Amino acid sequence: MAEPSVPIAPPLVNELDIVIPTIRNLDFLEMWRAFFQPYHLIIVQDGDPNKKINVPEGFDYELYNRNDINRILGPKASCISFKDSACRCFGYMVSKKKYIYTIDDDCFVAEDPTGQKINALAQHIQNLLTPATPFFFNTLYDPYRTGADFVRGYPFSLREGASTAVSHGLWLNIPDYDAPTQLVKPRERNTRYVDAVLTIPKSTLFPMCGMNLAFDRELIGPAMYFGLMGDGQPIGRYDDMWAGWCCKVICDHLGLGVKTGLPYIFHSKASNPFVNLKKEYKGIFWQEDIIPFFQSVVLPKECTTVQQCYIELSKMVREKLGPIDPYFEKLSDAMATWIDAWDELNPQ
Amino acid sequence: MAEPSVPIAPPLVNELDIVIPTIRNLDFLEMWRAFFQPYHLIIVQDGDPNKKINVPEGFDYELYNRNDINRILGPKASCISFKDSACRCFGYMVSKKKYIYTIDDDCFVAEDPTGQKINALAQHIQNLLTPATPFFFNTLYDPYRTGADFVRGYPFSLREGASTAVSHGLWLNIPDYDAPTQLVKPRERNTRYVDAVLTIPKSTLFPMCGMNLAFDRELIGPAMYFGLMGDGQPIGRYDDMWAGWCCKVICDHLGLGVKTGLPYIFHSKASNPFVNLKKEYKGIFWQEDIIPFFQSVVLPKECTTVQQCYIELSKMVREKLGPIDPYFEKLSDAMATWIDAWDELNPQ
Repeated sequence: MAEPSVPIAPPLVNELDIVIPTIRNLDFLEMWRAFFQPYHLIIVQDGDPNKKINVPEGFDYELYNRNDINRILGPKASCISFKDSACRCFGYMVSKKKYIYTIDDDCFVAEDPTGQKINALAQHIQNLLTPATPFFFNTLYDPYRTGADFVRGYPFSLREGASTAVSHGLWLNIPDYDAPTQLVKPRERNTRYVDAVLTIPKSTLFPMCGMNLAFDRELIGPAMYFGLMGDGQPIGRYDDMWAGWCCKVICDHLGLGVKTGLPYIFHSKASNPFVNLKKEYKGIFWQEDIIPFFQSVVLPKECTTVQQCYIELSKMVREKLGPIDPYFEKLSDAMATWIDAWDELNPQ
Repeated sequence: MAEPSVPIAPPLVNELDIVIPTIRNLDFLEMWRAFFQPYHLIIVQDGDPNKKINVPEGFDYELYNRNDINRILGPKASCISFKDSACRCFGYMVSKKKYIYTIDDDCFVAEDPTGQKINALAQHIQNLLTPATPFFFNTLYDPYRTGADFVRGYPFSLREGASTAVSHGLWLNIPDYDAPTQLVKPRERNTRYVDAVLTIPKSTLFPMCGMNLAFDRELIGPAMYFGLMGDGQPIGRYDDMWAGWCCKVICDHLGLGVKTGLPYIFHSKASNPFVNLKKEYKGIFWQEDIIPFFQSVVLPKECTTVQQCYIELSKMVREKLGPIDPYFEKLSDAMATWIDAWDELNPQ
């Protein structure tokens, strides 16, 4: 009953960059060659800059290591995480394209229930090019999909929808669990293919995973900051979560949509739960305060650009989360530095 | 990859009534016999009380026609719609069970993608007996389902969830479209089986369809009023929508959950779009004001029971929607009458 998983959508070859935080797995790009080769890749090396990353023949790419980041951003490089995949957001900043797709190097091509290989990128593009419906829930999911529509009782004035800023894709095989859940359910695999795309409603927060994520840089890019993680920082594995919470409140404020669901990738291996627990444990406490904070954020009407919203948010972070831990004051500064750096590399 | 569509769940035989608004199709109960026969049925005849409804052998049922409703409720019978399937809510009121499942007589047993017959009732029970997650979105859908859980970044303090008050099931074949969409897409069929149950987030409204719907009478019953439709009323086909909007704002206020998704039924035939347009056209205008009204409803903290919430809501309807059309003043009165009648038949 499922439709083909490769929707017909403009490929946006000249308007989309694929951002990859390092490539440890040599097979990774080979597996994606049929889908990724037409696109430009931006690889941001997350570890030792002296280590060589091998990119197979035939790919068009640029590669940045820590030395490049320091050279390009100067003192502002302090806002980019080191030895952590959070550094990928540097790629969002140096891109000159309208759209970004980011994927981890342990994510392979998944198959739909008919056994067909899923072109994740094509589905993300489809998600980004069709409107979202953040203001009212449609029970038949994405109303713009072939064979679906708005159901009875959906206000006609809302059927034009909102521009889609973010497309959050999911994962078959290894689910994106936190360390405690990994420890408790080491053998759990996600085998359920849910054939749906839906809009996360306005004023609802969600856990945004950076493994398989696409967004419209022009609409939301400056809010897609992956924070301070990894080397020298007290937490890890909250980079994408942080970006998701910030993006969602800003999308809500600006009337933009966030979608989740299709496409799936095949997440090949679970990261080490013991290492993850060490990275996460402060975040597990802190998020109990961070979520109510984001749920209560009201941005001033005067903030009409993503940059203005983000700077305002950085001030709120200092004021409301600073008392939890000095880390949040540092993060607040880094958020402001990130916007400075973004604007420097992306002059209006 | 899909799991069997018939989850193992307690059947609640002594705690659930099936409410059916009339039975025109003689095959209807035969088709559901394997699933419905253990349960008690409440049939509420929506048309001419002199017409005989034939119930096949072996079913345990009670049947109410308009004369019964008038006799039981006296002057309060004015709140129950006549010659419209909205009269089904009388069945919710006379039931003495904790749970209700309501289904239309043109809804047949659907098949999942493996060809297995779907036990819709068992899935609804599963939905009602597991918690909902209205306060934060889980990207892997229902975290209480086998093979799923809360994903990374989901606050641990919210993982107990909320009690589920409503389970809204979907429809394969004929989708639940309004008359304009029916007219524009006469041949559209819903063939997409989306293998998911999800919670509609807090503060998000949705179009609740009464075709395939289950709820916890003890938690939300008094708000499940299907309004004034049909004979003598200016609109139709907004009975379930009205109930859905009222229930959702009250569930949000009381911290209860509303789920949508599985189970599917097979919706066999589309109602006449020309007749539907006549019933709907005022609703199509009015809903443009009704939705913002419900989106802005804030119930007072003092309202701690469904009845209190509903009476408060009826006053707001008079005040805010009354100026649109005198119909809403009549509806406001009927909402209060409904609560009177409910409390009379269901003394504490």
